[in-house]
Amino acid sequence: MHATVASTAGPFPDDPTEGVREIARRAGVAARSLATADRSTKDAALHAMADALVAATAEIVEANALDLERGRERGMEPGLLDRLALTPERIDAIAASLREVAGLPDPVGEVVRGQTLPNGLRLRQLRVPMGVVGMIYEARPNVTVDVAGLGLKSGNAVVLRGGSAAESGNSVIVRVLGEALATCGLPADLVQSIDRYGRDGAVALMRARGLVDVLVPRGGASLIQTVVRESLVPVIETGIGNVHVFVDESADQRDALEIVLNSKTQRVGVCNAAESLLVHEAIADEFLPLVLAALRERDVVIHGDQHTLDSASGLAIDAVAASEEDWSTEYLALELAVRVVPDLDAAIEHIRTYTSGHTEAIVTGSLVSAQRFENEIDAAAIMINASTRFTDGGQLGLGAELGISTQKLHARGPMGLAELTTTKWVVTGTGHVRP
Amino acid sequence: MHATVASTAGPFPDDPTEGVREIARRAGVAARSLATADRSTKDAALHAMADALVAATAEIVEANALDLERGRERGMEPGLLDRLALTPERIDAIAASLREVAGLPDPVGEVVRGQTLPNGLRLRQLRVPMGVVGMIYEARPNVTVDVAGLGLKSGNAVVLRGGSAAESGNSVIVRVLGEALATCGLPADLVQSIDRYGRDGAVALMRARGLVDVLVPRGGASLIQTVVRESLVPVIETGIGNVHVFVDESADQRDALEIVLNSKTQRVGVCNAAESLLVHEAIADEFLPLVLAALRERDVVIHGDQHTLDSASGLAIDAVAASEEDWSTEYLALELAVRVVPDLDAAIEHIRTYTSGHTEAIVTGSLVSAQRFENEIDAAAIMINASTRFTDGGQLGLGAELGISTQKLHARGPMGLAELTTTKWVVTGTGHVRP
Repeated sequence: MHATVASTAGPFPDDPTEGVREIARRAGVAARSLATADRSTKDAALHAMADALVAATAEIVEANALDLERGRERGMEPGLLDRLALTPERIDAIAASLREVAGLPDPVGEVVRGQTLPNGLRLRQLRVPMGVVGMIYEARPNVTVDVAGLGLKSGNAVVLRGGSAAESGNSVIVRVLGEALATCGLPADLVQSIDRYGRDGAVALMRARGLVDVLVPRGGASLIQTVVRESLVPVIETGIGNVHVFVDESADQRDALEIVLNSKTQRVGVCNAAESLLVHEAIADEFLPLVLAALRERDVVIHGDQHTLDSASGLAIDAVAASEEDWSTEYLALELAVRVVPDLDAAIEHIRTYTSGHTEAIVTGSLVSAQRFENEIDAAAIMINASTRFTDGGQLGLGAELGISTQKLHARGPMGLAELTTTKWVVTGTGHVRP
Repeated sequence: MHATVASTAGPFPDDPTEGVREIARRAGVAARSLATADRSTKDAALHAMADALVAATAEIVEANALDLERGRERGMEPGLLDRLALTPERIDAIAASLREVAGLPDPVGEVVRGQTLPNGLRLRQLRVPMGVVGMIYEARPNVTVDVAGLGLKSGNAVVLRGGSAAESGNSVIVRVLGEALATCGLPADLVQSIDRYGRDGAVALMRARGLVDVLVPRGGASLIQTVVRESLVPVIETGIGNVHVFVDESADQRDALEIVLNSKTQRVGVCNAAESLLVHEAIADEFLPLVLAALRERDVVIHGDQHTLDSASGLAIDAVAASEEDWSTEYLALELAVRVVPDLDAAIEHIRTYTSGHTEAIVTGSLVSAQRFENEIDAAAIMINASTRFTDGGQLGLGAELGISTQKLHARGPMGLAELTTTKWVVTGTGHVRP
């Protein structure tokens, strides 16, 4: 199968399945050489990658301009165009994030557990790289660099499918990163793109079980659901957040107001932004006027239950009647579903019914309520008297993140360097056998 | 959908998909009530389950006799019949293993990471139950009890598909365990079987994404591969072991002999038994006669390369020429593939080509060889001067095991109680918002 690599048809097979498998195989070989690289080698490469990106700013911006032009022609939304856009300032920021990753501790080689058994066998459970990490994502070229950097630091090769909308920019970025790796004596195959194979390539990546160790989709709900459904490679599901804030009867209402506003409006269109507000009935008539007015000021459209609609109407604030669908909707926009609930039990029941398991918040003065909420809600992150926007690798001290896992296997919540590793048991004896 | 539960058609829907989904839903509800149960409640239930099994010995043995009879009629192999058989002594041992699980620390609630951030946010990453654990396994009724016990201790409900060959015994065991749970005030739905739905039920279990949190197949290679391929529920792959022992030139040959014999013959038909032996060329002419004679004495059939065949023939020992297929074969029997390799590099290359990533062993006196083997072989467990049979939850001090994971995601190597949990971030503030 390797025969086609150097064929006259070019360095890679034309067939998407064979091409992606060849790329994944090369990634596996490259990953082997990185698995035992020491931290200083990896950090030097991260700095070289950062320098190379900055040095290639003009070329990257030019390629990105082609992507932007194509996007505008195809009627891409302004928000998405903004995410896609690369400026010299943004490239500097992306390079700076690589240097930050260089400053983080190396997860590889950490002894997670260890002991000497009564029979004298010495045990160590070590953190080791996964090997080959596949990533399927949408039009955000910064993800290309973030994943390459986190992958390198954790000892992994990455195979990237960045989406056609960002293809020109990503192609330059991947080449520049590969050249930087080569100058540090590391294989350029540590960072490879399969964009040339289009959608068929993405499907081939999902089928490359045995060649790719883990696949992380990052993007909208439909992308993630497709990967979860289609992939034979183990997947870490990320980032769908139907996030709730519950304001309990004992809440400090000023804190509650700030937390609701911050959770909904500090940044819109992100998975840790609030999508539903639940208010305890006992304080609804006092708190709703406060929060509805403040949300109105920030142009947030309210989808309310009857109690909320009555409050809004008394304040002459427009509000839409919430349908069953609203309780499950991740708006990713300046919209919020609002419901009054009779008590904590009803709040917990509502959240259990509609949660996507990402982040759930309670604002309360009651220790019992806080403990019940913490125990009884099953989500990656529980916020007690804090904004839902804190569910973020940087905010939680992980240094950087690959995405936010909403599944229970392997990684839950923000995925940092440790979540890109697996472990290996090393058992050392002196001729030990089992009796 | 719940309407059918109490319908005249009986407590469960007749349709396998609906039936399994209903069972999984009930498991989810039961798991919620267990998630916050304290250790003493769970340990009391484990003891009650052990007592109930012993008290029901006669009934279990009787039901098992039906399974054995059916097995014999269908021509089941003696080895499998032996695994299927339950005697009063075996039931006592199974009950004892439940009491051992009661003695293990509770993994739930452990703070895995925690800190107070510079902004005053207090972080805890807590170990919490998965929720609903599905298990698909073959005719070993002890697994029914092991999984129920480990699941209970780790706060999970289990949904079991134990295979038609063990159905009569498993049915009694599941009922007895459920009754014991009920006497402790815990829901019987914590331990449920889907055997009544046959193969269609197993397929429905693999499709029950969202209702089942993780699915663990345990059994032969074809069972495991089917589950890995078909399941939409996240799977932890277990137990395929193409296990190698490499005897380096600097090995203590008496140790090497004991380790090879123990790895191959201490117990046959288990995933951590050796299937291939690699011998460094420099000591082959001295070591092969020793090891071939000893293996011959223990009735081990040798599949050898030319060097090995020459040695065997010089000793008048029968040996078969190894084919390419032999290097990939998990014999699970008194057979061993034997190859002479020129050096450590060739041994590493051979193992990399054929490993299933379970356990790989080196016998050596060289620190450099040991370190290279440890670093360069990618497997769940590396044995240095120790038998491969030590890759076992009990042997490695985990107390008990659900199986041995050969995948890299979530769990690698023996899966104990911690591997049946996930984590949850709890972030406590005092009105914190993101600037």
